[in-house]
Amino acid sequence: TSQKDFNNTVNQVKLLKEDPVNEGKLKLYTIYKQATEGPCNVPKPGMLDFINKTKWDAWNALGNLSKEAAQQNYSPSSEAPAADRKQLESHSLVVTSEDGITTIRLNRPTKRNALTTQMYHDIIAALQAASKDESAITVLTGSGDYYCSGNDLTNFTNLPAGGLEMARSREVLLRDFVNCFINFPKSLVAVVNGPAVGISVTIIGLSDVMYATDRATFHTPFCHLGQSPESCSSYTFPKIMGSSKAAEMLLFGKKLTAQESCAQGLVTEVFPDGTFQKEVWDRLKAYSKLPPKARRISKQIIRNGEKEKLQVVNAEESSVLRERWLSDECMNAIVSFL
Amino acid sequence: TSQKDFNNTVNQVKLLKEDPVNEGKLKLYTIYKQATEGPCNVPKPGMLDFINKTKWDAWNALGNLSKEAAQQNYSPSSEAPAADRKQLESHSLVVTSEDGITTIRLNRPTKRNALTTQMYHDIIAALQAASKDESAITVLTGSGDYYCSGNDLTNFTNLPAGGLEMARSREVLLRDFVNCFINFPKSLVAVVNGPAVGISVTIIGLSDVMYATDRATFHTPFCHLGQSPESCSSYTFPKIMGSSKAAEMLLFGKKLTAQESCAQGLVTEVFPDGTFQKEVWDRLKAYSKLPPKARRISKQIIRNGEKEKLQVVNAEESSVLRERWLSDECMNAIVSFL
Amino acid sequence: TSQKDFNNTVNQVKLLKEDPVNEGKLKLYTIYKQATEGPCNVPKPGMLDFINKTKWDAWNALGNLSKEAAQQNYSPSSEAPAADRKQLESHSLVVTSEDGITTIRLNRPTKRNALTTQMYHDIIAALQAASKDESAITVLTGSGDYYCSGNDLTNFTNLPAGGLEMARSREVLLRDFVNCFINFPKSLVAVVNGPAVGISVTIIGLSDVMYATDRATFHTPFCHLGQSPESCSSYTFPKIMGSSKAAEMLLFGKKLTAQESCAQGLVTEVFPDGTFQKEVWDRLKAYSKLPPKARRISKQIIRNGEKEKLQVVNAEESSVLRERWLSDECMNAIVSFL
Repeated sequence: TSQKDFNNTVNQVKLLKEDPVNEGKLKLYTIYKQATEGPCNVPKPGMLDFINKTKWDAWNALGNLSKEAAQQNYSPSSEAPAADRKQLESHSLVVTSEDGITTIRLNRPTKRNALTTQMYHDIIAALQAASKDESAITVLTGSGDYYCSGNDLTNFTNLPAGGLEMARSREVLLRDFVNCFINFPKSLVAVVNGPAVGISVTIIGLSDVMYATDRATFHTPFCHLGQSPESCSSYTFPKIMGSSKAAEMLLFGKKLTAQESCAQGLVTEVFPDGTFQKEVWDRLKAYSKLPPKARRISKQIIRNGEKEKLQVVNAEESSVLRERWLSDECMNAIVSFL
Repeated sequence: TSQKDFNNTVNQVKLLKEDPVNEGKLKLYTIYKQATEGPCNVPKPGMLDFINKTKWDAWNALGNLSKEAAQQNYSPSSEAPAADRKQLESHSLVVTSEDGITTIRLNRPTKRNALTTQMYHDIIAALQAASKDESAITVLTGSGDYYCSGNDLTNFTNLPAGGLEMARSREVLLRDFVNCFINFPKSLVAVVNGPAVGISVTIIGLSDVMYATDRATFHTPFCHLGQSPESCSSYTFPKIMGSSKAAEMLLFGKKLTAQESCAQGLVTEVFPDGTFQKEVWDRLKAYSKLPPKARRISKQIIRNGEKEKLQVVNAEESSVLRERWLSDECMNAIVSFL
Repeated sequence: TSQKDFNNTVNQVKLLKEDPVNEGKLKLYTIYKQATEGPCNVPKPGMLDFINKTKWDAWNALGNLSKEAAQQNYSPSSEAPAADRKQLESHSLVVTSEDGITTIRLNRPTKRNALTTQMYHDIIAALQAASKDESAITVLTGSGDYYCSGNDLTNFTNLPAGGLEMARSREVLLRDFVNCFINFPKSLVAVVNGPAVGISVTIIGLSDVMYATDRATFHTPFCHLGQSPESCSSYTFPKIMGSSKAAEMLLFGKKLTAQESCAQGLVTEVFPDGTFQKEVWDRLKAYSKLPPKARRISKQIIRNGEKEKLQVVNAEESSVLRERWLSDECMNAIVSFL
């Protein structure tokens, strides 16, 4: 079943793109090619090779535009316009508070809750607010059938055109995002309602407790995308599941079932999908009534012993990723999925 | 089953008290109320609310005794008299040596082997003696159906009346007790003959090998009691079982079965209760014949790599607990069980 | 089954010797006795006690040779002659490269792939070459039914006669060997085709991924041999499987099945023996096609976080072992198997 596993992995990643030749992605593709390789310099694909021909046509249409011009030309659109950001802020993340529990819900179900740049900012803000509100427990979960499909791939396709400066800015965002989880002072629970991919998996290593439906899977195809581990997973995963299980996940992109993840300690407990929501929320409501200061102080003791180490690892991982984002391997992997 | 779990937890802790309105505990309760809240200031419970009325009567009987007087009045009885200590010394802990194995047996079965202050002192002395005797292996176990129900709750009820000085003295005792386990030079084996609670669970993280009957359970309701983890469990438990399993135990007081504890690495092996004693002791007798210096040196290498870290964690945990013992959360939790 | 376990352990170790009274081992035995105890000073065994009588005869035949002379007399033959080394180099280790995978195969099946001193040197050289070749993945595996039975015991029997200097030289060899694994920059996969013993088990803690046939067992009888853990297992094993599982293996020599090793995280995945080779190699071929730089950098991030710690542990373990090799416990254990 090894070949089958590998094919599944590739298919899984391919599923992350939903409109293979839609206009926005096509533009990203062509500007990337022009900015890095210059004018179109490869043979035209055959008429029946639909996707590749569409991509070739678009690249070729840029004519003699210079690499520099391509980069400059592209920069302005690399951030969503202010109006869009406002909309994302109000819909892609829903924060509610009830029964002593603040819930941060990823709410982009048609995109399998893929994380946009704006959502990174919004999650940081939501965690900062939750750390100061009256709640006892903070929950991360997703809307719909997916927990989270990881990064929206356009987060990376923007980078080469944006150049080193944009990559640096993204590195800082990632580092700040992860530090928010490292420093979060209250009990943080991941309620994993479906498949989880990429950073939504690794960040779990920094939460306290993690409940999963038996439909959930856990998948970190970093190397498939020419990237490398983040969210301190290079440190937390070997510690949680042992080096030999962690390496197959982080180096080779092995996808785990919910039961496997639980046996290896990544997941605290797995529930049948039919009763998942009821069982988990009943339990959390009971837990939220425990003495809050004792719980907060207990978490502090556990976390303080490795907080400094986690911050160092986070900074190093983020810095390595910045270089990865600008690498040929990464861009070729991303572009091959467009 | 979440609500059921939570109720079980509460019942479990309530079981720790066996004579809810016995004279000694009633005295502790009333002196605590008088010392912290002053003269009785709440409405008298109804005639049928037996326990609360008994407590109210006792508190009310102290009349206008001032807070300060209540604290002073109480201090003298906060340590068991010398005669009692002698008796505890000879009966609550039984140390034997045979077949190259020194066995330290908690022997207070009618109190589920709950640890008194005196027993802390006695265990320290027993470990120091065992580290120098001719034995190859040291075993910790319990008499009767329980392994150990954790601290005798009167260890904590004494503290507020005793004030900061007594809390400091208890912090030192706890730290020394745990350091004895950190520094113990020989193979240390826990033979867990029944349910284990609190510090009797966490200290296992500092032993080498742990065998359990399938009747055993492992329960650390620190937060339920307004307290926080000790015995380096904030460091050892995440390392042994991964952060997400450790957090549910240490932050939310999740009780584990023997099988769960074994799957997560806390327990080395589980045996059917019917053959538990025979299988475990046969195995230990075989192990005790292995070359002793090689075993001692091997343990040293394993332990030395983290001894310094363990000592730092122990000191920090003990210091945090000192503050916890004097907190409202802790006293309210303890008193609510009296 | 404890007594049975223990007997199995002893039998297992005894199996490591295959020609109990062959000429080479007999010479090692007699020179060791003469060098450490002087002229034969024990009663002659009965005629029917074949093995012991053969050993006694050989020792007795050395007559009044002094301890010093015995040591000097023996030194010259303590290293295999150059011709032998050449032969070992070409046959005991087979290195091939195909499909982006470099395979280092232990190839001494009639000796259950026991590691000679020469093979230590050859593995170091093979790893250094593999780190620079074009391959994406490096595999360690064994020929025949065994993965590796650990050290050829003559590695240790040479030591006392060779004295402190030879022990020091062996310490350096061990340390360099283990450092090669600590510093290896590519994905390193152990394909465990059968039982594994001693250093072939512990070194797995420094590889990335480990696949095992369901026939494999994992056994580290260090203390049985008067020795102590190496290859950083005093650090990696507690981290991988938790302290209580690691201690029974490292202190008491508990042998694990493939399934147990997998449940505890030492093994990544277990395969039925019938399909083991096909499934594993299909999977590895798929993995070898992943972007190589991303994989290499990802491994670096994981390893860098503890590389310094591993090197310190390795140096300490090797130094402790040097003393162990010269100890009475160690020599008595080894000699008792001759």
